[in-house]
Amino acid sequence: MPEISKRGRDMPASPIRKLTPFAEQAKKEGKKVYHLNIGQPDIETPEIMLNALKNIDFTIWAYTPSEGIASYREKLAAYYNKLNYRIAPTDILVTNGGSEALTIAVQSCLSPGDEIIIPEPFYANYNGFVCAADAVVRPILSYIETGFALPPIAEFEKLITDRTRAIAICNPNNPTGYLYSREELESLKALCLKYDLYLFADEAYREFCYDSNTFVSPMHLDGLEQHVVIIDTVSKRYSACGARIGCLITKNKELYHTALKFAQTRLSPSLEGQIAAEAAIDTPDSYFEAVSKEYTARRNTLVEGLNKIEGVFCAVPGGAFYVVAKLPIDNADKFCQWILEEFSYNNETVMMAPATGFYSTPNVGINQVRLAYVLKQEDLRNALACLEKALKAYPGRISI
Amino acid sequence: MPEISKRGRDMPASPIRKLTPFAEQAKKEGKKVYHLNIGQPDIETPEIMLNALKNIDFTIWAYTPSEGIASYREKLAAYYNKLNYRIAPTDILVTNGGSEALTIAVQSCLSPGDEIIIPEPFYANYNGFVCAADAVVRPILSYIETGFALPPIAEFEKLITDRTRAIAICNPNNPTGYLYSREELESLKALCLKYDLYLFADEAYREFCYDSNTFVSPMHLDGLEQHVVIIDTVSKRYSACGARIGCLITKNKELYHTALKFAQTRLSPSLEGQIAAEAAIDTPDSYFEAVSKEYTARRNTLVEGLNKIEGVFCAVPGGAFYVVAKLPIDNADKFCQWILEEFSYNNETVMMAPATGFYSTPNVGINQVRLAYVLKQEDLRNALACLEKALKAYPGRISI
Ligand SMILES: Cc1ncc(COP(=O)(O)O)c(C=O)c1O
Ligand SMILES: Cc1ncc(COP(=O)(O)O)c(C=O)c1O
Repeated sequence: MPEISKRGRDMPASPIRKLTPFAEQAKKEGKKVYHLNIGQPDIETPEIMLNALKNIDFTIWAYTPSEGIASYREKLAAYYNKLNYRIAPTDILVTNGGSEALTIAVQSCLSPGDEIIIPEPFYANYNGFVCAADAVVRPILSYIETGFALPPIAEFEKLITDRTRAIAICNPNNPTGYLYSREELESLKALCLKYDLYLFADEAYREFCYDSNTFVSPMHLDGLEQHVVIIDTVSKRYSACGARIGCLITKNKELYHTALKFAQTRLSPSLEGQIAAEAAIDTPDSYFEAVSKEYTARRNTLVEGLNKIEGVFCAVPGGAFYVVAKLPIDNADKFCQWILEEFSYNNETVMMAPATGFYSTPNVGINQVRLAYVLKQEDLRNALACLEKALKAYPGRISI
Repeated sequence: MPEISKRGRDMPASPIRKLTPFAEQAKKEGKKVYHLNIGQPDIETPEIMLNALKNIDFTIWAYTPSEGIASYREKLAAYYNKLNYRIAPTDILVTNGGSEALTIAVQSCLSPGDEIIIPEPFYANYNGFVCAADAVVRPILSYIETGFALPPIAEFEKLITDRTRAIAICNPNNPTGYLYSREELESLKALCLKYDLYLFADEAYREFCYDSNTFVSPMHLDGLEQHVVIIDTVSKRYSACGARIGCLITKNKELYHTALKFAQTRLSPSLEGQIAAEAAIDTPDSYFEAVSKEYTARRNTLVEGLNKIEGVFCAVPGGAFYVVAKLPIDNADKFCQWILEEFSYNNETVMMAPATGFYSTPNVGINQVRLAYVLKQEDLRNALACLEKALKAYPGRISI
């Protein structure tokens, strides 16, 4: 049998999916499973976006330009410029979701063996995008005690080698919910300028900032224009994960030109997805206000509920819709499997993502889980009750 | 400024796009331009497919499974099994177009420095997919005199090294229109078994076979199950290029599992695209019969018209909707630019793709062009008349 490529062998399997068979089995046994493990929001897509899809009037479902439809890029630029990004439509490359923007950014900037520094815990698929480019992730620990704030710049500097090409942040963060401050971004700016590194900023959760925290993008910083690469997506903003529309933004023309070559090879993003995404830009503010209110309430319910459980700790995150919580357990991989396999309360159980999948340093975060607050508050409360009972019953409980 | 990756620098720019500014300029000057340069059909998408899109009834535009929607994979398997492919739904990985299927196939099978043998001229973007994996295309010449039949197997064997991992064919072929015979596929089978190589078969144009030629797929050959990777797409079959739905098919479970890891990293293909593509499988035979009749007529018009022009030669291709023709000229890159820039007939001109973009061996095919018969016959006739006059007027004409 012919061989698999080395990168194909090294490619990490999605850590979240390891638990799927256990969740399916639990459902077969009649248990209700609360899915706190995934990033698929239960929020409805804006009507204006769905209607654009239903009202398409083309008769030939044709390719679009590789860089995206001109009118969509113009409206996108206006959206970003309202946020003071100071960009032109020609700085935007429309992609198949944020995932493809990440793929193209990594492919364009990192040669085989090159390194990218990423604060951990981080979105697990970053491992996949970097592996696909035969490059290397150098993780840098952030700590639950600080709410997963940016590690000190001195720690970054320790990791920098002649193979370092980029630093990646996700802001607001998946999985921690942490929202980076202007000061933190300024310190990353100084670092990127000093060592001439790209700064990838994955802003998939930009619209999810709570408590009137202000969102700051590296696009707001002067003098970093040649280094910043923004990754964006309509997936979370409009609860339109299945539309597969995202974009890469850079003011660095050489990089844009390179990214465009990758984009031309795969021809174009989807026509109807772009039409709908263009319409979505006119989503009324009231939609976002309602969503933000809902998520704030959910976050509060979840975080307060978690911290009330004996031995559990979780900071109050400023954005996204995830928290990473520390549990009084020996091992979250075991616990998350056990709660699906062996436990139920009122015939219900909870699916969570063990945080180890978000760390690339071994043996770190083994007592942490990521919880997504993508369910109604009532469900969150039930899930919390179930978790509390489970922690009492779990044989691997440890006291903290 | 931070560096671009090596592969980013090596990445070929799309050769077809080099002429775009000249076509735009010609249009600005008021010339009508016949686009024979592109693979975007003018055929309407089946109504059943467009209606499925217009009738979507989800309210949350959600991710689908990474491997594709179960019901779609089942219907796809039934479509292939009608064609006697003998596959299961679990052999199918749904992708963002055939382009992503190619990307994943190459990423899964070729490590950096590994080699893939491809008969040339070939679909130019193969260079991009292979470059993105830091792998190497080893081209093998096919000849216009034989209608671009498969080169002798002995020629393939000369190119095989310990880095050879795969052979790729496109059947029916873009850019030549050549349809491989069962004998040719059998000879490739023997070769792939002998040297333990993957056989990638890009069947984007499967439904476009003329003159009651029978289409043969490597999936029809016994004993090659572990080696075959089929690349497919709805782009051409249903004139739905902008839907970005394709698939990778393999019965090799280790390869499937590897490909799935890449697919999981990018989350999912589009939801609405898969819904529409599933509906498209019920496109009535009458649609394909009408399309096939139309393309056959166009091909005949184009091929006969070309061969009537003094010094022009073109074989009669068995499939797809392209031909590669030899012109009595010094250099097709120059000629294709010249005809846009300097020439017009009845205030009309023609855009063609110089064949050099489809060869990776330098200085081959320099007097050849690819023409796509994606226009109505009347337009093809006008384009032919224009081409004939242009060839007379062109200063770089050479006699053959
Ligand atoms: C941090 C982050 N980046 C990127 C993505 C990719 O999203 P998509 O490809 O749907 O745009 C996700 C999805 O969950 C994410 O959480
Ligand atoms: C031979 C061949 N393969 C693959 C593709 C990619 O098509 P898509 O990504 O639209 O499925 C094309 C498009 O023109 C093609 O001609």
